[in-house]
Amino acid sequence: MSSFRFAVNVTPKPGILDPQGRAVEGSLDHLGIEGVRSVRVGRRVELTVDAGDEGAARAVVERLASELLANPLIEAYAIETTEPVA
Amino acid sequence: MSSFRFAVNVTPKPGILDPQGRAVEGSLDHLGIEGVRSVRVGRRVELTVDAGDEGAARAVVERLASELLANPLIEAYAIETTEPVA
Repeated sequence: MSSFRFAVNVTPKPGILDPQGRAVEGSLDHLGIEGVRSVRVGRRVELTVDAGDEGAARAVVERLASELLANPLIEAYAIETTEPVA
Repeated sequence: MSSFRFAVNVTPKPGILDPQGRAVEGSLDHLGIEGVRSVRVGRRVELTVDAGDEGAARAVVERLASELLANPLIEAYAIETTEPVA
């Protein structure tokens, strides 16, 4: 049994309204920041999985991402392996 | 002037309460998922910056992250360069 650390990045699909992204863009003028565009705001979920090997651990994360973390109608997700920090 | 695409990962600092992470952990039994622990839920902000070079673009993102996207008292952030997809 080994421990693997993953991150799941959940982002609004292209074409889906992203009010948080619009809110960030609306604050840029206020801060005097120029040249920033196409802001999309999503979630990042970091987690540790105890499993026999990395393939088994990734399968658990895949299931978790598709069934709980992301709404497949409006969100896309990407799974990445990260440093074991926690 | 070139375009650079970045992602800013904002996560709760170690030791800071993370109710969303606890909520995910509380749903695991329900889904019959075992071996998942240390769940932390943060935000992922993807954005495009138009600037003269990557250093100048990264400086803009650094300012945006520290002044708007993350609350430095309770959140840490990491900036990564991503594929220009939007």
